[in-house]
Amino acid sequence: MSETMTEFARAVQDILAAGQRMDARGWVPATAGNISRRLSDGRIAITRSGCHKGFLQGADVITVDEAGKPHNAGDKPSAETLLHCQIYQQDPTAGAVLHGHSVAATVLSMTEKSPALHLADYEVQKVFEGQSTHEASVPVPLFDNDQDIARLAREVEPSFGSMPAGYIIRGHGVYVWGKDMPTALARLEGLEFLLACMLERRKLGL
Amino acid sequence: MSETMTEFARAVQDILAAGQRMDARGWVPATAGNISRRLSDGRIAITRSGCHKGFLQGADVITVDEAGKPHNAGDKPSAETLLHCQIYQQDPTAGAVLHGHSVAATVLSMTEKSPALHLADYEVQKVFEGQSTHEASVPVPLFDNDQDIARLAREVEPSFGSMPAGYIIRGHGVYVWGKDMPTALARLEGLEFLLACMLERRKLGL
Amino acid sequence: MSETMTEFARAVQDILAAGQRMDARGWVPATAGNISRRLSDGRIAITRSGCHKGFLQGADVITVDEAGKPHNAGDKPSAETLLHCQIYQQDPTAGAVLHGHSVAATVLSMTEKSPALHLADYEVQKVFEGQSTHEASVPVPLFDNDQDIARLAREVEPSFGSMPAGYIIRGHGVYVWGKDMPTALARLEGLEFLLACMLERRKLGL
Amino acid sequence: MSETMTEFARAVQDILAAGQRMDARGWVPATAGNISRRLSDGRIAITRSGCHKGFLQGADVITVDEAGKPHNAGDKPSAETLLHCQIYQQDPTAGAVLHGHSVAATVLSMTEKSPALHLADYEVQKVFEGQSTHEASVPVPLFDNDQDIARLAREVEPSFGSMPAGYIIRGHGVYVWGKDMPTALARLEGLEFLLACMLERRKLGL
Repeated sequence: MSETMTEFARAVQDILAAGQRMDARGWVPATAGNISRRLSDGRIAITRSGCHKGFLQGADVITVDEAGKPHNAGDKPSAETLLHCQIYQQDPTAGAVLHGHSVAATVLSMTEKSPALHLADYEVQKVFEGQSTHEASVPVPLFDNDQDIARLAREVEPSFGSMPAGYIIRGHGVYVWGKDMPTALARLEGLEFLLACMLERRKLGL
Repeated sequence: MSETMTEFARAVQDILAAGQRMDARGWVPATAGNISRRLSDGRIAITRSGCHKGFLQGADVITVDEAGKPHNAGDKPSAETLLHCQIYQQDPTAGAVLHGHSVAATVLSMTEKSPALHLADYEVQKVFEGQSTHEASVPVPLFDNDQDIARLAREVEPSFGSMPAGYIIRGHGVYVWGKDMPTALARLEGLEFLLACMLERRKLGL
Repeated sequence: MSETMTEFARAVQDILAAGQRMDARGWVPATAGNISRRLSDGRIAITRSGCHKGFLQGADVITVDEAGKPHNAGDKPSAETLLHCQIYQQDPTAGAVLHGHSVAATVLSMTEKSPALHLADYEVQKVFEGQSTHEASVPVPLFDNDQDIARLAREVEPSFGSMPAGYIIRGHGVYVWGKDMPTALARLEGLEFLLACMLERRKLGL
Repeated sequence: MSETMTEFARAVQDILAAGQRMDARGWVPATAGNISRRLSDGRIAITRSGCHKGFLQGADVITVDEAGKPHNAGDKPSAETLLHCQIYQQDPTAGAVLHGHSVAATVLSMTEKSPALHLADYEVQKVFEGQSTHEASVPVPLFDNDQDIARLAREVEPSFGSMPAGYIIRGHGVYVWGKDMPTALARLEGLEFLLACMLERRKLGL
């Protein structure tokens, strides 16, 4: 087995385990969500379109190039592959990207009319890139959903560099990334925990 | 083993796995819910009356004909078998039917006085038959519960063809179907996710 | 192995499995709750005091007589053993008793000032003894908590025969029973599901 | 294997199992939380900084002395190790300490402006040290979060001896302890259950 094969096999393992974890938390209902890993040769391993992320098989992970084009012409990547590619392009340190759909992210993003949610005074926000205290305020940008993914990507573009906790598409879900899969998963869990807290606080009228 | 036997065995596997999945999500409390699969010879494999869907054994799945009559005279199918038969009759593409009882479906259906819930602006609604954008509005009809299942079926009848996300019986639960079990399960998860979102939004006064 | 031994061993299995199930649902936090089975010779197999119900071992199940006295003088049964004995005495068909502490039962029983919760219009209420339609109203009596279990038992006594869904001790939890463990568990799941629905409806101001 | 080795190995097992349990309940999102056990020679076995508590490996548990200094100079204990050491110093009976981050603890502690939450009328509060009735009121002190852990420890210090259910750091999480790991876990479950009840009651306006 070549080095490249081995690295791909590890990426597949990471993606399957992440899918099971996200499913256990209820963040990938139906066939929602998608998951990717960047390989050292620049290829992106990503979930095939239409699979349930809690029950992924090895064959459900395909590779695309930096522009989102499948290496195997017959493969159909997720419609949102372009958003993964954009993250890898904009953040050279990114090694894994997670996109999930939680109840809290969906509800808060449809409720909040301003362009971002602001996380403040939470210890857990220290999990995000560059954060060392609960006393900071971490913005999580909200973008309107759009079936035209290229157009959506252009809306997201200017915010790169100032969204350490990832971003949310309204009525849709979160995008979170990290240097490797454990880092991306920790940030996803951190963000979802904080969104759950925020939703509870809003129910208390706060 | 004959082809028919093999197909039935696969249907049983599908039904047991679906029951465990629905139980893990809390959608089949007590002995609630029922699950079926249509076989290629027109027979319907369906859960026996009174079983817990999270702990089904192979012997808990029986077969009935298109009118709901058990092939084995001693078998007692669920009281709601007729609603499964109706779906298979009305939708020739249907291969699997799921009926579950969730807190969100129960509560929303008892709260909402209008004849349908409307799903709009959610990315996940694309999981339903024929939906390609969050910008549509998908109606989920609500029918009053009735212990007379034949009468309830007559109430549901006119809505076939215009309920891509299935329907809800008030204070009771959802009916969802698809061409095969994975499709039916994905739609069930999609619908339950959206009902959970809707319930949270109502708690926020929206 | 004698017949009696075998029956006790089966009772232990039932109790361990019920404990794991209740723990998975979050209904036996800390060392809360207790679980019993009546044996054919009149002995009652019941959980020892102070154990976590999700991690029971065979040695955590002891036997007591009809008055709650341990057969083995060194065994310490739960303080609430008397309430189990009372159920077995009052309902000769009872074969299993479950006592759990859920968030919904705790909160609703502390909120509701009237002497009972009333379950109505829910399909799931058909799981309770003698119920055949959602159109009935099933009362679930609420009793004030009391560390004097004998006195609490006297308060509960007059309600036997008119509480098909069991009863609730305020700020404490539910007591549910059935002819065997699967029946008792189905009723517990039914009751907890309906309490969860009722709590959600109250949050909507209903 | 020496006695000391064996005791450390058992402590590691306790810590890994506690981490998995807390993760299953959603109380250690991302890399939050930390877990320790005191060994009979005074050393403290504690989770390494930055690990996910649901996926701990044996190598993720290190030992520190009574002042929090790692025995192996290369080990980096959690920033909050000092709070564990303080508990072991203040309570000579303490054998295990758990620190978790739940949604309920986070939200209630950020909502409540007074210096403590008060648990009253709950049967489950009997799980805490010295409590024998639901009729008592158990205070759970709330301390403002502080990235300066030594300063935070000084704020907590005067409350030792009068916080049988542990304490909460605002926007951060709970600290709970017991003579051994099962006792500490039972108290954690009891406290989290009661915080969940309290949060639900506040949503009902109570």
